Amino acid sequence: MSELALLKEFRAGAPTHPAIRVGPGSDCAVLTCTPGHEFTYKIDQVVEGTHFVLAGEAPSGPIPHATPRQVGAKALNKALSDLAAAGSWPVAAMVSVNVRKGTPDAVARELYQGLVASCVAFGCGLAGGDYAVSENGLSVSVALIGSCPAGSAWTRAGGRPGDVLLVTGSLGGSLAGKHLDFTPRLAEARAIRALAGAGVHACIDITDGLARDLKHLCDESHCGATVHAARVPLSDAAVATGDGLGHALCDGEDFELLLAVEPAAAARLLAESPRPLTAIGTLDEPGTGRWLVLPDGERRALPDVGYEHR
Amino acid sequence: MSELALLKEFRAGAPTHPAIRVGPGSDCAVLTCTPGHEFTYKIDQVVEGTHFVLAGEAPSGPIPHATPRQVGAKALNKALSDLAAAGSWPVAAMVSVNVRKGTPDAVARELYQGLVASCVAFGCGLAGGDYAVSENGLSVSVALIGSCPAGSAWTRAGGRPGDVLLVTGSLGGSLAGKHLDFTPRLAEARAIRALAGAGVHACIDITDGLARDLKHLCDESHCGATVHAARVPLSDAAVATGDGLGHALCDGEDFELLLAVEPAAAARLLAESPRPLTAIGTLDEPGTGRWLVLPDGERRALPDVGYEHR
Repeated sequence: MSELALLKEFRAGAPTHPAIRVGPGSDCAVLTCTPGHEFTYKIDQVVEGTHFVLAGEAPSGPIPHATPRQVGAKALNKALSDLAAAGSWPVAAMVSVNVRKGTPDAVARELYQGLVASCVAFGCGLAGGDYAVSENGLSVSVALIGSCPAGSAWTRAGGRPGDVLLVTGSLGGSLAGKHLDFTPRLAEARAIRALAGAGVHACIDITDGLARDLKHLCDESHCGATVHAARVPLSDAAVATGDGLGHALCDGEDFELLLAVEPAAAARLLAESPRPLTAIGTLDEPGTGRWLVLPDGERRALPDVGYEHR
Repeated sequence: MSELALLKEFRAGAPTHPAIRVGPGSDCAVLTCTPGHEFTYKIDQVVEGTHFVLAGEAPSGPIPHATPRQVGAKALNKALSDLAAAGSWPVAAMVSVNVRKGTPDAVARELYQGLVASCVAFGCGLAGGDYAVSENGLSVSVALIGSCPAGSAWTRAGGRPGDVLLVTGSLGGSLAGKHLDFTPRLAEARAIRALAGAGVHACIDITDGLARDLKHLCDESHCGATVHAARVPLSDAAVATGDGLGHALCDGEDFELLLAVEPAAAARLLAESPRPLTAIGTLDEPGTGRWLVLPDGERRALPDVGYEHR
């Protein structure tokens, strides 16, 4: 099938969104600005040989196998996780796909189905895209626009000493399977917004491991931090490794949210949140560093390491 | 230099824009919606081995050589050309870059300088990005947000029988050099808007060749078209080939605008436009096909071919 025929098929199946005034088919899509709202904006990519190896191909070290459908879904879900970390909800995706010459149409189609399924599951429109064929491996870049009330998007900055550190879900061991089958925490972000309002001071999604992403949040918020080891929620996959805490601190691709929340709002969230939410520590005064408190009271500097996506 | 150090350097040099409330450094950038405006939205990519071969590497057929700086500039300028085709002006770019393992930092830095220089030249902010390293060749995806008054973005649809077809600049022979050194027609789009207002019914940027892009516009506008061969503005590079018209019709990467404009507004534009603008024909009734009229009056069906970017 020619490139144009394939694109025509993709275009016909693109999910819509009320804010997409003009969808695929022109040089640009057009988005309506909702008065009183602002847009969040993100780009992310997944690259063959770095983030995945296609099922059926030779394994390459620790890089996990994935079907084309999983690649498409992951590309979108990774970026949706960032919209959740901004406390926003999805509006419109733009996708650029680069496939290796000779790739069967079925692979491109399955990839597209993965993208569309994820768009539909999370209420995101697909506003357009670009498709290239090359000698290179498969790569998918997803740009996403989200929306939230004006002035209220969460960032990594804004955390204050005394804020409670909360995490959604459980951490570590994602490579055992979750990294291909995770739910971007959009519903959690929305519930947290509703309960905590402006009490959320900062947020990040955990993609490089708790230790490193906490560092990112602390750097941007100019705070120190203390994390209580016994309170870190460990995933079953992390526990199964025999070093649950190590994996929870240093594995990547958890796609859970780490939030810095004003104490009264944090208490309300912990009491009323309909979804798993755990207090793991606090933000501290600037310049105090980041510390892990072990069950016996010993304090250890939190490592500045984690999964560096290359 | 580590990936994080390089990204920190890039982030510090990112051009700003008044609509970017939060720039690089958090999970999402945040864009302020200007009341009474809408956003245009685009993604595009350039891929090593398909759109360019890096200077110093072995040539690959007709694929042109480019420096990293030219690759960065072209990636951004291609997408800016789409914003121009929507009659909008740039607000914020998001860039995902995928470089081959072992690529010197200098290459990444030059690429980034090309992106930034183009952002600065056209008033576009750089809101964030993603950087991956893989065994694959270099590829750069650029997502762009533009802005224009609400309800007024140009699309490929909306052209009507009787509209005059106008093109900016001159066409053909882009591979001789222009494809790496073109000016996205943002200033032209703005001037055309000011003079023609709602008289512009449809627009497309010429990237696949006049013949094919006219087909795209006609398909979306449900119109036929007549083009007068003698009126098509030929570039010097096209003329130098000995078949200027053939190249003007079928070469890709002109990055000029093709507009369908209501006749009175077209006359005003032709009389008053400060920049080169040429009337090359008209849109016709639906179902009449697309025709080229030769100087001797002979009518030939316009070819449905052009440069297919793969």
